[in-house]
Amino acid sequence: MAPTTVRPWLRRYETISDFYLSTEVVICGYGGAGAAAALEARRAGADVLVLERASGGGGATQMSSCEMYLGGSGGTAIHKALGMEDTTENMLAYITECFGAHGDAEKIRTYVEGAAAHFDWAESLGVPYKREAIMDRTVVPFTDESLLFTGNERAHPFNKIATPIPRGHVPSKEGDEGGRIFMQALMRHVEEAGAIIQSDARVVGLLQDDEGRVRGVAAKIDGEERYIKATRGVILTAGGFVMNRQMIEKHAPHVIGLGEPYGNQWDLGDGIQMGIAAGANAINMNECFLSFAFYPPAKLTYGILVNGRGQRFINEDTYLARLGHYAGLQDNHEIYMLVQNEDFELSHYMERLRIAGTGDTIAEVEAEAGLPVGSLQATVTYYNEHAARGEDPLFQKESNWVKPIAKGPFALVSYCPQEVKYPLGENPGYLMFTLGGLETRVSGEVLTAQGDIIPGLYAAGRTTAGLPRTAKGYASGMSVGDATFFGRRAGQTVAAAEQHS
Amino acid sequence: MAPTTVRPWLRRYETISDFYLSTEVVICGYGGAGAAAALEARRAGADVLVLERASGGGGATQMSSCEMYLGGSGGTAIHKALGMEDTTENMLAYITECFGAHGDAEKIRTYVEGAAAHFDWAESLGVPYKREAIMDRTVVPFTDESLLFTGNERAHPFNKIATPIPRGHVPSKEGDEGGRIFMQALMRHVEEAGAIIQSDARVVGLLQDDEGRVRGVAAKIDGEERYIKATRGVILTAGGFVMNRQMIEKHAPHVIGLGEPYGNQWDLGDGIQMGIAAGANAINMNECFLSFAFYPPAKLTYGILVNGRGQRFINEDTYLARLGHYAGLQDNHEIYMLVQNEDFELSHYMERLRIAGTGDTIAEVEAEAGLPVGSLQATVTYYNEHAARGEDPLFQKESNWVKPIAKGPFALVSYCPQEVKYPLGENPGYLMFTLGGLETRVSGEVLTAQGDIIPGLYAAGRTTAGLPRTAKGYASGMSVGDATFFGRRAGQTVAAAEQHS
Repeated sequence: MAPTTVRPWLRRYETISDFYLSTEVVICGYGGAGAAAALEARRAGADVLVLERASGGGGATQMSSCEMYLGGSGGTAIHKALGMEDTTENMLAYITECFGAHGDAEKIRTYVEGAAAHFDWAESLGVPYKREAIMDRTVVPFTDESLLFTGNERAHPFNKIATPIPRGHVPSKEGDEGGRIFMQALMRHVEEAGAIIQSDARVVGLLQDDEGRVRGVAAKIDGEERYIKATRGVILTAGGFVMNRQMIEKHAPHVIGLGEPYGNQWDLGDGIQMGIAAGANAINMNECFLSFAFYPPAKLTYGILVNGRGQRFINEDTYLARLGHYAGLQDNHEIYMLVQNEDFELSHYMERLRIAGTGDTIAEVEAEAGLPVGSLQATVTYYNEHAARGEDPLFQKESNWVKPIAKGPFALVSYCPQEVKYPLGENPGYLMFTLGGLETRVSGEVLTAQGDIIPGLYAAGRTTAGLPRTAKGYASGMSVGDATFFGRRAGQTVAAAEQHS
Repeated sequence: MAPTTVRPWLRRYETISDFYLSTEVVICGYGGAGAAAALEARRAGADVLVLERASGGGGATQMSSCEMYLGGSGGTAIHKALGMEDTTENMLAYITECFGAHGDAEKIRTYVEGAAAHFDWAESLGVPYKREAIMDRTVVPFTDESLLFTGNERAHPFNKIATPIPRGHVPSKEGDEGGRIFMQALMRHVEEAGAIIQSDARVVGLLQDDEGRVRGVAAKIDGEERYIKATRGVILTAGGFVMNRQMIEKHAPHVIGLGEPYGNQWDLGDGIQMGIAAGANAINMNECFLSFAFYPPAKLTYGILVNGRGQRFINEDTYLARLGHYAGLQDNHEIYMLVQNEDFELSHYMERLRIAGTGDTIAEVEAEAGLPVGSLQATVTYYNEHAARGEDPLFQKESNWVKPIAKGPFALVSYCPQEVKYPLGENPGYLMFTLGGLETRVSGEVLTAQGDIIPGLYAAGRTTAGLPRTAKGYASGMSVGDATFFGRRAGQTVAAAEQHS
């Protein structure tokens, strides 16, 4: 008899008689969060089954550079080897400023307090990290350094709130292979530890009993819906929903035309939908990471970004996600950069760029680009007056990036999202992924809107609203850092949970 | 025996044996949406029970001015009497522009096509409407006209997209009593039609059967939880969630410090929570109406609004909600107005205002207010140069509001939300209410995230994501218009629904 299903993504446990198998912990999704959870649960002695919809593990973490945003506790092992210091208070002040009212204070504190030790864990997997830092303004090192700035640490207002220190930790390897290196190491440990991995298995629903406890999952395996009991609990680590166009339209319509989905093809929100079906609270659903990576080359930072009114709107030395956030706020997503010839070079991450205007004078550029008459000229006159002294009174770009834009010829480069394309995306737009999902405690326990725990249900990674909450304050490494850090926590929690057979 | 409750806001129908009563239609909330639904359901012959948590009906609609945003079909009866024309296409173009990707095209079309007839319905209740329009830039008429501009119709870019026409319809009475007049008339009709009203009755859960059908409600009446069967269906019309601080923190943290809750004290999101518990999709949850009503007096529109960098950010002749939206985007919510003495008068809706700077020159004002040196001067120089010709090339404020700000003394008025207070709010901040809620069809049927209908469940008003979706394009009258229009629809739908006893 088919089990009762009041709604999609849910089956009534009491109506299921035929179980395919029973284990202690079922993990839905074998990316960074799921693998980290599996390893910790298995190490704590629990029987673990990982179900993965794709034909192999890795998830979005494997596609990434695997930067992890780590520090605090005096510094990570890399910080210490390089003679850098990062106090817990310093990192706490920084991340607290990043997310403001969006932040989850308990998650921030727990993460910061455990971040340096999390680095040791990552390294203990056999992932190579080199005690060398790259201090340039860049996105990922294509050389083999393992430490770099991946946020707004050196930019206003953050540099007034916390002492800048690079916190992006990335596996050492020339090229951009961090994700593959890390996930292969992590998955090898997971499998050696004895977790069972079932690929090509789509979890299609949670089994919830009449008391509200999650008791297992329904999964499509070999084309059939099968029921799997999880006596300690189920962990949802199925990624975000950036690939689910319908969910984007309903929850984050403002990114349509602005952001181009960047993630794993199965980031369809299945985990979030299952959690909601079981009574979970989904929060922060409109927030997305956005990457407006006009740099490298770093020297473009000498230019000024203006909107369709020729007005500046941000200090240009901020991070790609903050740039994306502010770019997204400009009317009609009109974003341009004015740069003088000596600082111009195509942005390395953009496949094509339109030059909206050129000229030997700002007036010529302005006219060719069709900006309101006199608008860009007024902006540049004001900027140059202060830039001559290395100052930027409006946005406080750091003085090392401030100089008059006075020597023509000049170019106005269009960074309107409909005109830029990253090699990583199929369509024009800034790269994006989602930052909303299930509300969880630091333990991984999933919460209802009333703040109650849903027994037997856990989650981590982009299936949750985790550490990073807005592009405005996002630093690269916060998502993989969060997913693996709280993935481990969830694995530990569920392994210690009482059994319900 | 207590019924099974897998989660808050839900009871398993099969476990309930003792019903307090059974009726055909149960409506949860007796505000504008609920009363409109009750009247239509009763007129269609259904037995109707309305449960209201407060000691009397009226809801947020009764607290409002009861503006309704109406037009199309050649014009409402008022438009026609005044010789004004408003085509359906014109109104459709306007509202479509208002909400962009946030809009629900089917709701917009349905509403626009039926809006003129909706006016006739409102008038047929005995609500007085005077065939007279007030064309001033104001918020509500304190004289007895019944028609006014309540949106951005005359402002850029809307005036290039649709022919401006006033669409705010308000009951005729000196003073601001529209909501009371309308709700008293509507509730009298509801009660004369034979609907049963139960006040002091808090609905605490939906009764859902194992097939997913909503079969009734659980309500706290006289201190006891009682079960009420609804054989045709349940309509959720319990308002939004602006009074629920926890929900605001989780779903719309960006309005904290910006918006001051404005609504009925029971706008706690109960209806939304119940819908979610029964499997509904909640969308648009981060969006709020915001009212930055610096006018009247209209002459303040001659001033220019600037942010903390002395930059303009909007055409000042736009509507209070659009002003609120753009003000909310400015860093640190720093918002000021520069005005020359002859145009200055305190904003009528603000209880107190701080003057951030005064002076006979812009330089003096700028220095006293502590704006970046030269920033306000550069803004004013550029503005005045074009204003001398009645032009505003940056924001296209209409020329009737454009003149140089050249005759001192000048004042810079702070509209930073933490420094303004409306008589209607308890704390500083722009007035706000929520625009997110359950996803519904135009029929009032409630949808799951998969787009399936939840049988037996209907909703309208601010419990839903309705016609108005963002402050950016909000026009007053859209919320009450939406609530009563789609409330009626929901009442008609449920009355025609098949019985399930």
